[in-house]
Amino acid sequence: MDLPEDELVAAIRKVLSGAGPEVLIGPGDDAAVVAAGDGQLVLTTDALVEGTHFLRSLSAPRDLGYKAIVVSVSDIAAMAASPRFALCALTLSDVVEAGWVMELFGGMREACEEHAVWLVGGNLARGSEITIAISVTGEVVPGRAVSRSGARVGDRVVVTGELGAPAAALRIVRSGSPPRGEAELAAVRRLERPTARVGEASVLAANGATAMIDLSDGLGLDLSRLCAASGVGASVSVEVVPVAAAATPEDALGGGEDYELLATLPDDEAVARTGSELRGVFGVSLTEIGRIIEEGLVAVGSDGRERPLETKGWDHFRARSE
Amino acid sequence: MDLPEDELVAAIRKVLSGAGPEVLIGPGDDAAVVAAGDGQLVLTTDALVEGTHFLRSLSAPRDLGYKAIVVSVSDIAAMAASPRFALCALTLSDVVEAGWVMELFGGMREACEEHAVWLVGGNLARGSEITIAISVTGEVVPGRAVSRSGARVGDRVVVTGELGAPAAALRIVRSGSPPRGEAELAAVRRLERPTARVGEASVLAANGATAMIDLSDGLGLDLSRLCAASGVGASVSVEVVPVAAAATPEDALGGGEDYELLATLPDDEAVARTGSELRGVFGVSLTEIGRIIEEGLVAVGSDGRERPLETKGWDHFRARSE
Repeated sequence: MDLPEDELVAAIRKVLSGAGPEVLIGPGDDAAVVAAGDGQLVLTTDALVEGTHFLRSLSAPRDLGYKAIVVSVSDIAAMAASPRFALCALTLSDVVEAGWVMELFGGMREACEEHAVWLVGGNLARGSEITIAISVTGEVVPGRAVSRSGARVGDRVVVTGELGAPAAALRIVRSGSPPRGEAELAAVRRLERPTARVGEASVLAANGATAMIDLSDGLGLDLSRLCAASGVGASVSVEVVPVAAAATPEDALGGGEDYELLATLPDDEAVARTGSELRGVFGVSLTEIGRIIEEGLVAVGSDGRERPLETKGWDHFRARSE
Repeated sequence: MDLPEDELVAAIRKVLSGAGPEVLIGPGDDAAVVAAGDGQLVLTTDALVEGTHFLRSLSAPRDLGYKAIVVSVSDIAAMAASPRFALCALTLSDVVEAGWVMELFGGMREACEEHAVWLVGGNLARGSEITIAISVTGEVVPGRAVSRSGARVGDRVVVTGELGAPAAALRIVRSGSPPRGEAELAAVRRLERPTARVGEASVLAANGATAMIDLSDGLGLDLSRLCAASGVGASVSVEVVPVAAAATPEDALGGGEDYELLATLPDDEAVARTGSELRGVFGVSLTEIGRIIEEGLVAVGSDGRERPLETKGWDHFRARSE
């Protein structure tokens, strides 16, 4: 490919520009929001590709199926919507056996049951590698979807949970040696079985979240996307970013696949109330990591020094696993 | 793979069995029908895989994009629903250039515009071959979706248009020699730019169609699927099956990718009225090719002899192009 992912995506968006009044949020957010009948639907699609997102030798099919669903459900959650229905377009290679496929669907079903989603259809095709393309349809109360584009100067930047465990786990898994200790085991579990923050997102929305995105490609890159969509900048206090036990600060800032929520809230009261509700209802922490500023992406170190925030993140389109 | 497609699909369906009351038609039809808000949605997904469904050396990206959308829109049409929104999960290989991708999306947009569909989102991933996975959301008036499973003994079996052109075109394209004459050119055009019979399907539904399916895998195989879903059999008069100009009777009975509609209508009057409306409004023919019987799939030859109807059709899962 002769263009990096974000430039290609921008070019594609130009080809697709223009949409009817029933398209409320089009390409470019975690999911699209459309009007249908009296309600609003939230639509998203994502794919796990063998060799890029997983290796068959390292992943149990049940975990893969589970993850394939969660990744798309997380995009629906990031719009503050409720996931409802899923479809799977599955490409299988010759070497895959029926038992593997059954396990894959078993994992999908598990994730669907946990998130009250119905897997209502699919398609099977043959190819040289496995591709699991999932699309999920969600519902949202009209006017209540939270996009990436509503952050305003002065908003607090918050993040759910702790970051970096999946990036640390990927290192462990690729090293070939088994995970050691509770923290490493938990990190690997988190990589294999991520959690979509559906309920958490609705608490954030109810407390006035102005913008939201799920962390799939790394805090730096995803924050830069939220800021670009909102036409603002952000300042992040690096030392307060919550780092998972097995992870390094670099994992937390630049690793992918966290599927935590990054959101902006209007004031201290909203942060305090949201934090207390998330802790109380879900046992999930909320951390204020910075502020929305007029422009630029700034990382403030423990010494008070400002540097540009690293936004390389996790370009799945470039970074193909060996 | 150690199981043929239809057996694998049946096994998967068992894993997915059980659904809430909002799932009106689940896996196993052209598309799923679900209740959302006050309305009903129709959901489907399909994929075109390089090497299985197309070869980059033989297909223009604009045609491919067009076809990828039409194939899924056709599944929505086969439920007598209106396609509304599309998503694309695209896997690209290293050798693909940005211009190719732009053309692909240009073709998708063309097909979307022709069918009043909005392409509202997508996903890009990297892989070793190109996969274009499309999902389409449609709307249908509650209770008006036509499934595969409503055919009753005595119903007339009808088909829109003429069959076999895409199968003939595939032979021409693979031969390496250019198409000769109007008929071959039209056949190749039909392979590259199929038509989804959206309006035609709603006419069939309005005239009481009891069951419907789009012909993607060949008349014999798709009729066997409709009959299996309805718990009935069918008798087909082979010599009345409408054969496209460049095609052979074998292409019409066993070739894939026609995307015409196969439906059942309750009586002669419904057939006459539907035929007249389709001709008048769309310039599309309707042919009665047989009757629904209690069991078995029978082909009646011009000599009046009955033989079993060939249902091998087009198993994309097995038949990978070289």
